[in-house]
Amino acid sequence: MRPSNRAADELRAVTIERNVARYAEGSCLIKFGGTHVLCTASLEDKPPAWLRGQGRGWVTAEYSMLPRATHTRTRRESTSGKQTGRSQEIQRLIGRSLRAVTNLQGLGERQITLDCDVLQADGGTRTAAITGAWVALHDCVKWMRGRSIIKDHPLRDHVAAISCGISNGEPVLDLDYAEDSAAETDANFVMTGGGSLVEVQATAEAAVFSDGQLHAMLTLARAGIARLVDLQKTAVA
Amino acid sequence: MRPSNRAADELRAVTIERNVARYAEGSCLIKFGGTHVLCTASLEDKPPAWLRGQGRGWVTAEYSMLPRATHTRTRRESTSGKQTGRSQEIQRLIGRSLRAVTNLQGLGERQITLDCDVLQADGGTRTAAITGAWVALHDCVKWMRGRSIIKDHPLRDHVAAISCGISNGEPVLDLDYAEDSAAETDANFVMTGGGSLVEVQATAEAAVFSDGQLHAMLTLARAGIARLVDLQKTAVA
Amino acid sequence: MRPSNRAADELRAVTIERNVARYAEGSCLIKFGGTHVLCTASLEDKPPAWLRGQGRGWVTAEYSMLPRATHTRTRRESTSGKQTGRSQEIQRLIGRSLRAVTNLQGLGERQITLDCDVLQADGGTRTAAITGAWVALHDCVKWMRGRSIIKDHPLRDHVAAISCGISNGEPVLDLDYAEDSAAETDANFVMTGGGSLVEVQATAEAAVFSDGQLHAMLTLARAGIARLVDLQKTAVA
Amino acid sequence: MRPSNRAADELRAVTIERNVARYAEGSCLIKFGGTHVLCTASLEDKPPAWLRGQGRGWVTAEYSMLPRATHTRTRRESTSGKQTGRSQEIQRLIGRSLRAVTNLQGLGERQITLDCDVLQADGGTRTAAITGAWVALHDCVKWMRGRSIIKDHPLRDHVAAISCGISNGEPVLDLDYAEDSAAETDANFVMTGGGSLVEVQATAEAAVFSDGQLHAMLTLARAGIARLVDLQKTAVA
Amino acid sequence: MRPSNRAADELRAVTIERNVARYAEGSCLIKFGGTHVLCTASLEDKPPAWLRGQGRGWVTAEYSMLPRATHTRTRRESTSGKQTGRSQEIQRLIGRSLRAVTNLQGLGERQITLDCDVLQADGGTRTAAITGAWVALHDCVKWMRGRSIIKDHPLRDHVAAISCGISNGEPVLDLDYAEDSAAETDANFVMTGGGSLVEVQATAEAAVFSDGQLHAMLTLARAGIARLVDLQKTAVA
Amino acid sequence: MRPSNRAADELRAVTIERNVARYAEGSCLIKFGGTHVLCTASLEDKPPAWLRGQGRGWVTAEYSMLPRATHTRTRRESTSGKQTGRSQEIQRLIGRSLRAVTNLQGLGERQITLDCDVLQADGGTRTAAITGAWVALHDCVKWMRGRSIIKDHPLRDHVAAISCGISNGEPVLDLDYAEDSAAETDANFVMTGGGSLVEVQATAEAAVFSDGQLHAMLTLARAGIARLVDLQKTAVA
Repeated sequence: MRPSNRAADELRAVTIERNVARYAEGSCLIKFGGTHVLCTASLEDKPPAWLRGQGRGWVTAEYSMLPRATHTRTRRESTSGKQTGRSQEIQRLIGRSLRAVTNLQGLGERQITLDCDVLQADGGTRTAAITGAWVALHDCVKWMRGRSIIKDHPLRDHVAAISCGISNGEPVLDLDYAEDSAAETDANFVMTGGGSLVEVQATAEAAVFSDGQLHAMLTLARAGIARLVDLQKTAVA
Repeated sequence: MRPSNRAADELRAVTIERNVARYAEGSCLIKFGGTHVLCTASLEDKPPAWLRGQGRGWVTAEYSMLPRATHTRTRRESTSGKQTGRSQEIQRLIGRSLRAVTNLQGLGERQITLDCDVLQADGGTRTAAITGAWVALHDCVKWMRGRSIIKDHPLRDHVAAISCGISNGEPVLDLDYAEDSAAETDANFVMTGGGSLVEVQATAEAAVFSDGQLHAMLTLARAGIARLVDLQKTAVA
Repeated sequence: MRPSNRAADELRAVTIERNVARYAEGSCLIKFGGTHVLCTASLEDKPPAWLRGQGRGWVTAEYSMLPRATHTRTRRESTSGKQTGRSQEIQRLIGRSLRAVTNLQGLGERQITLDCDVLQADGGTRTAAITGAWVALHDCVKWMRGRSIIKDHPLRDHVAAISCGISNGEPVLDLDYAEDSAAETDANFVMTGGGSLVEVQATAEAAVFSDGQLHAMLTLARAGIARLVDLQKTAVA
Repeated sequence: MRPSNRAADELRAVTIERNVARYAEGSCLIKFGGTHVLCTASLEDKPPAWLRGQGRGWVTAEYSMLPRATHTRTRRESTSGKQTGRSQEIQRLIGRSLRAVTNLQGLGERQITLDCDVLQADGGTRTAAITGAWVALHDCVKWMRGRSIIKDHPLRDHVAAISCGISNGEPVLDLDYAEDSAAETDANFVMTGGGSLVEVQATAEAAVFSDGQLHAMLTLARAGIARLVDLQKTAVA
Repeated sequence: MRPSNRAADELRAVTIERNVARYAEGSCLIKFGGTHVLCTASLEDKPPAWLRGQGRGWVTAEYSMLPRATHTRTRRESTSGKQTGRSQEIQRLIGRSLRAVTNLQGLGERQITLDCDVLQADGGTRTAAITGAWVALHDCVKWMRGRSIIKDHPLRDHVAAISCGISNGEPVLDLDYAEDSAAETDANFVMTGGGSLVEVQATAEAAVFSDGQLHAMLTLARAGIARLVDLQKTAVA
Repeated sequence: MRPSNRAADELRAVTIERNVARYAEGSCLIKFGGTHVLCTASLEDKPPAWLRGQGRGWVTAEYSMLPRATHTRTRRESTSGKQTGRSQEIQRLIGRSLRAVTNLQGLGERQITLDCDVLQADGGTRTAAITGAWVALHDCVKWMRGRSIIKDHPLRDHVAAISCGISNGEPVLDLDYAEDSAAETDANFVMTGGGSLVEVQATAEAAVFSDGQLHAMLTLARAGIARLVDLQKTAVA
């Protein structure tokens, strides 16, 4: 039995609340159980400097945790003077994931920044961030279309993410912090609404893993992400 | 008539929601109209290095705004590598204000950090932060007393804060962003539950001001802070 | 009796020596007793980037203390890699104070930077800096007019500043370091030559304060600043 | 046909030269074709601060590219003041990979730092770095055993890494820069000598990918890593 | 004829004013013509961390220029976040020069920091700084002996410095800014009171130089430094 | 007898291997005994910002040591967030030395950056770097002439450098680390192929030095540099 009494293939309670930030072009507060992430999309009327004059736009992300999102207080990145390697790694992943389903030509020479700020962290913050960032991005492009800034819909598909792990030898879905910190192997999967893979990151923590275990986690993830995409559809309906 | 249709001495709708952060020893989400600040109190079992061995504790604060708390996105302080002067100035004010009503000897050799993170900003973020931080601090010391970490209550009084301004020549209370950015003079007052002054900061923006105008703002602030203290009392009752 | 044997409303010996920096467009060395601040005004032929194309100029300030201006050596800000929060807070105050009496349109698209470097610190460095910076700014605009860079005088009035405090229960003027570090309340007032208020900053240190005490400090400050303005007039005559 | 005229499952010429750094406890220069990485292992007689007193050691890594390792000169990280997100991500991966085959208890309270400096970059720098770092680490623990600092061999197995990709729709092994920058999907695999998985990172670049494509890349990687492990064995024989 | 109408071997007017900083253990304001440097010596009761427990002390220096010490304003190092390479090079030279005449064992486990802050710069700031720093250091050790902190005098000799150059083909002494910026070769010499060499730094600017020119500059420097040492003796008499 | 059994005027074995970096416009690996420096020249098609529009180019240098180039591991400058003062001092010296023999007008509005990365350090890294950088610069301008980017050869002469020292009272040439760390005086000389002086830096370490000792070191350096210039000629022949 899992620490949270969930079945091996059971997601935590997931909720998505849209339009939580008054000024952002798109926003949501997404909760994967005790993990709460505020996602906002901010439109800027020019692309990053290195992309100027190429007729394309850009989607990027920034990720941060509030100091007391965690069990013990974490030092604020602004006072230590730099982002941690972990934060940078996660925000690069979020940006890549969203760009994988965006037609950048369709944005014109503009940039959308997805800020994912973790208000409370109980494992799986990066997967909640990706799943919520899609909703914020969706609402941002809807806002743009409503003002005729763009004509066609530049999002080709949904994108969502979930974690899996090998815990006490068994593959499990959507680990919370307690389970994650004890798991032998830890993996994150990012997939499209159509079921294609966008990113796979699997890491041996306490023990190395086999092809079969990778495959079992992939199977769990596929089902979990399908449910997350349904929740995204309901949210933006 | 004010842009928000309020009377000159009328606060915005103020709400205080306690226990919003699962891991913090004390927390609240305070709203002054469209200004939303998440306040958490984090207990650390040792004082800052410069205070070691003196038998006293310390209360400090950190302040930050989420990038899209504002009309246009603000650059994240962790990516620019340092806090702005404005953030530092505000967090120094929050810390001083809370220490003014805390018996630091009563904390023992410990530190409480008050993190004030602005989720949405519509003027008066520092005054909401001080008012909310008091609630988080209150709950933190209550948590400590519940675990017999300390015996006596180290908070001597309430502390709360409100902004005033001279707007179109008239003194007004609790300015929102629209009013604040057009005001001739801008002031922040911090007072105790007993009505004593803790901090006065009045600044000429578009026009210098007179002793009479300072006095009129002080009178407005006194009434407004009394109402905020009542709201704090209700919140922690 | 005060530690310095001064009457409650007595300034320290104040001297202003003009033209102390060969290359600056305006400069002075101002002394408030043992507090010595070197103020220079530097003219730059373009405004800050965010102000370009608006037909206005800008006045800004930077403040720093030499490492051994103080009783014990303070770490140099350039080796710690950033300005302290205190330095930033003070230089923001100096800049605001000077802009309050400057017609920024009258400067054209130019910037004047007031560097206030504390050679020796015995309390009241920010008030000496503001009072001296006005002299440096005055001489800079005089220099500009002498070269027909501008035609009209962009300074609308004098501006000067003084500290007050509640010391042993009594309001006193112009605190030195010994008095300042023991005072119950600490306040800084910035006023124009015409007697209008530009900035009020009053802070409870060891004890909260009353409206009456704020008013008493304001009265002391008004008289002190009038004398400082007279000294500025003599200096630039 | 691949740009390099290699078969889909063909590695570039791989060479490992040991003992290239006079002072390091272990070192090698590893070449994957035009990618050259200098790997050194440095023993420090205490663990990182957060691990003190736990009877265990630590293995960590740092990764950097010389400015002109690349087609056009890259700005030196020491002059920009921080490591790029990419460098941090890679060095975290190298450290995790080596720890996965190291008995940290067996090191005692010591730290081994693996510095991986890319002298020339033609794709696959992180996989060459992991493969070479294992040799440097091997020689470092051999050095320690030779001096009776440790008794048992703390390396449980080999670890090596290789990249794969989907290029023109076909899975290929060990991409050089030209192939990598045009590939639809990019993946890195880290495995032990025994064939277990340590890390899988697969990323959609120009196109999303399927389970089948992931599996095909995994099969290629397994064969490639087996050959790299053979080369490690020959090198340290 | 030189721009300053001086003879080739003529120093600028040099003055040394002692005891200019109330709190420092030693201080002077030294002027080489229009170059003004404030030098303070600060005693700290422990050596730097890397020297602990070795029974020796340390002498170090920090060098900085006020922003408007120069013709056009220089950016403040504390706002740019780091010292320039030039400042670091100069302060390393000052520290080495003073240590060359100090018996570090004689200081005990203490550190003396020499802060050299350039108030006005007209060429030769590093040579003025070294010459003035000796006076501040002298007064600091005198202060220590007066309080019986040390018994013997740890200064073995005087140390002073002067610049030379090849200007219009002729060797000249003590260049001001105008001459320095046009000189073909620029050199700085540091010598003891006894006439031994401590440091020679000669640099081709507009033209390479010969052994004969180096020797001619050395001869000029020797005479100039002898006069500076006389001025130091008079100052501390 | 010297620790390395060399005669007082004997260089270590010096080798220069050209074309070691595939992408650089010029490169070499230079070895002075156990000191190995990788030098690359990178051409950029615009000058630094401060030189734009003046019809001239620029030659600059960056210097760094790999963390384990030294006996004990040195902290990586990119993780400490800034270059050390030593690195900055050395790279400024390398840049000046190369510019002394370059016709900057002849480069047109371009910049050449010489990266000198120390793979292994056994004393004399800066002199090896200067000597090797000349070869890289030579090959870079040859590359430019081969592509008709420039017409005339902008290098006016060779430039090379060597260290000398006073060791056990005797002047010696080309010190290795063991000898350097025990020497009384340490000097670096930079000269042209024609035998003119470009830079002299002589520093008292354990003892001050005399004019005669400076002259003796200069004589040794002159012979050593002549041999280095011969090696450069052979290398680029």
